[in-house]
Amino acid sequence: MDIRDKALQVILKAKNPLISSVGEDGYPYTKAMLPPREHDGLSVFYFTTNTSSLRVSQYRKNPKASVYFFDAGSFTGVLLLGEMEVFTDQISRERIWRAGDTLYYPQGVTDADYAVLCFTARSGRLYEKFGTKDFGVP
Amino acid sequence: MDIRDKALQVILKAKNPLISSVGEDGYPYTKAMLPPREHDGLSVFYFTTNTSSLRVSQYRKNPKASVYFFDAGSFTGVLLLGEMEVFTDQISRERIWRAGDTLYYPQGVTDADYAVLCFTARSGRLYEKFGTKDFGVP
Repeated sequence: MDIRDKALQVILKAKNPLISSVGEDGYPYTKAMLPPREHDGLSVFYFTTNTSSLRVSQYRKNPKASVYFFDAGSFTGVLLLGEMEVFTDQISRERIWRAGDTLYYPQGVTDADYAVLCFTARSGRLYEKFGTKDFGVP
Repeated sequence: MDIRDKALQVILKAKNPLISSVGEDGYPYTKAMLPPREHDGLSVFYFTTNTSSLRVSQYRKNPKASVYFFDAGSFTGVLLLGEMEVFTDQISRERIWRAGDTLYYPQGVTDADYAVLCFTARSGRLYEKFGTKDFGVP
């Protein structure tokens, strides 16, 4: 199987992708997310988040990011490196809004604390039990 | 419950902690690990790893690290920020070696590709469904 097909399999299976950022203090920060609302293959991923979150303020200052998808059953992971953008425009927010999101954003799709994270990958790395392989994106 | 007790609960429950580093390219790198072999409360954690791994070379150049523990059931995460050291001395290697590790390190406890990662936390952050709390370590 092609390495990128395999990576995509892991991505589709992973329940809680981890997004990472680099703080102004130089430390790497990692946090579990809900699955991406939309994605374009291995390239672009959209997540919902809180505008007030630490991650949003870090990405606004330093967009260098990674997203890590992990399948515990096979101990296989996919690390994508790229840039994270923060969108708060209404078109982006409506694009990935879903019924039930008021649980997290009580004011609805115009909630000031509702933002969209858009990750664009530039390279990837597949971790399998006994080895790792790099691949280009797209 | 005290916030650090709660953090420790999540840490003990998490099956695959994620370690993060910052590469020379300035990107955050994240990878799933086997559970720590030993730990001292919230402060110090020992992991096994491959000496040849990207993570080892990154930590040798830049020890700034984080370890993230996540419990999917309760969507609760603990992020510890601190420093990662790489040990390849025989005392450290024997300390956390376990029968069966030859699966990963065929040459045994003296395998050149077997190293110890020692993480020392300096601060922590507890992520719960609807809020985050910082805490000091120890």
